[in-house]
Amino acid sequence: MALDIQQHNTAAVVYGIDADVTHANKALSLGIIHHKATMDALPTADVVLVAVPVDVLLDILPEVLDLVSDTAVVVEVGSSKERICATVATHRKRRNLIATHPIAGTEFSGPSAAHTGLFQQKTMIVCEVEKTAFSLQEKALEIFKNLGMRIRYMDPVAHDKHIAYVSHLSHISSFMLGKTVLEKEENERDIFDMAGSGFASTVRLAKSSPAMWAPIFEQNKTNIVASLTEYIRNLEAFKALMVSDQFSEIYKTMEDTHQLKNILNGIVQ
Amino acid sequence: MALDIQQHNTAAVVYGIDADVTHANKALSLGIIHHKATMDALPTADVVLVAVPVDVLLDILPEVLDLVSDTAVVVEVGSSKERICATVATHRKRRNLIATHPIAGTEFSGPSAAHTGLFQQKTMIVCEVEKTAFSLQEKALEIFKNLGMRIRYMDPVAHDKHIAYVSHLSHISSFMLGKTVLEKEENERDIFDMAGSGFASTVRLAKSSPAMWAPIFEQNKTNIVASLTEYIRNLEAFKALMVSDQFSEIYKTMEDTHQLKNILNGIVQ
Repeated sequence: MALDIQQHNTAAVVYGIDADVTHANKALSLGIIHHKATMDALPTADVVLVAVPVDVLLDILPEVLDLVSDTAVVVEVGSSKERICATVATHRKRRNLIATHPIAGTEFSGPSAAHTGLFQQKTMIVCEVEKTAFSLQEKALEIFKNLGMRIRYMDPVAHDKHIAYVSHLSHISSFMLGKTVLEKEENERDIFDMAGSGFASTVRLAKSSPAMWAPIFEQNKTNIVASLTEYIRNLEAFKALMVSDQFSEIYKTMEDTHQLKNILNGIVQ
Repeated sequence: MALDIQQHNTAAVVYGIDADVTHANKALSLGIIHHKATMDALPTADVVLVAVPVDVLLDILPEVLDLVSDTAVVVEVGSSKERICATVATHRKRRNLIATHPIAGTEFSGPSAAHTGLFQQKTMIVCEVEKTAFSLQEKALEIFKNLGMRIRYMDPVAHDKHIAYVSHLSHISSFMLGKTVLEKEENERDIFDMAGSGFASTVRLAKSSPAMWAPIFEQNKTNIVASLTEYIRNLEAFKALMVSDQFSEIYKTMEDTHQLKNILNGIVQ
């Protein structure tokens, strides 16, 4: 996001704060940030982007809001929204915050995974927009539009319920698929030789950072457990059809899922 | 495959036989084949590529072998190998057949999904190679090498066991993930807006053809049921960890799966 903002606003000066000094140095050498900084720099910032694992976010977001000026906009980009919004609900600077979830990313982490154009044509979910000061909404939305994003407003509870299905569950299915295959195939060379792009695509998300994802699973536990229960029920039903040789039913089940084609064709990859 | 063969052998004349006349005409207009043909053309063929759903393959492969000349090589490319190899084991022209599984493809079907270069750096699994006449092995392997493939020899039983994990199971996890989300999200527009490239990647295989896949599931039933049972067991264990708030265990599980990274980085997508 810092890379893209620099392209649209050549006057922008980007300060980077990172708990990991290696990452901060890397971000500096890649030109993602112009200066390394500490929390002391926050009072002079115009725009603050908070992109940290969602468990850290619960601690750090109130602290960031405490430090920023009245005219600064704080953009948090956590993948869960209910707990985060609740945590800052009564903060005296709640109006300085815009709670978002950019539906964009890769399975890679750290500054070397950054690339320009990631947000083009992607969805930016904005929660509780009415709680953000009007002028700061405008400031943030202009940035998001310059990144090429489509804005969608949603309440945090609905966000967490829906995202459990279309994002969080995918990560679990992918992690567990990877685990199942690793357990079975002790000889890595065999997997490598026989796995094609289909397998690679299905387990791609299993490469995601545990430090980012374990806290998301924790914060969205109830919705994820519900989606996981339904997923397991569907897998059990599929298995039962196989065991009882009902392959015409299996054909039908697969055909019914084909309407996904049209939906997925609209998703920019 | 026909497209690539034409690039490497400009003298090749390609005859296409298809039960679906629309597909045959499309293949002709796209230049994938030079002539439409019927089974009557088989006695004059030098190389016969049999690429049909694996249930149809069981019926048609003996028929193809009956019709070809003694010097023709028949390449079958079914995704299951045990039943297919067993079906032709005692055929008097077994030596004319090379049983293969090219680990390459997309989720799309029909002639308009064809593209050159699909097989570059992909794995070609060859089963029971010793049952193919030596001169015909050479003929077939030269074609596969011209396509850019790496050859791996494997027995049909081991193939079916391994491929259940790295390919067949992925398709089921993907289909059921798609089904679970579709059932939950009745408003398609919501899915579309919130789904990102991660979801698209995980359910990509759910766009695969049921006519191709239902028979694969049927022929490799035992191995797939075993892999599905282990996958469901892992999902249940993950769910139990979530329900009992053991998120540090979840972190550890995810981290253990990270060795997939190195394996997957070697797969050409």
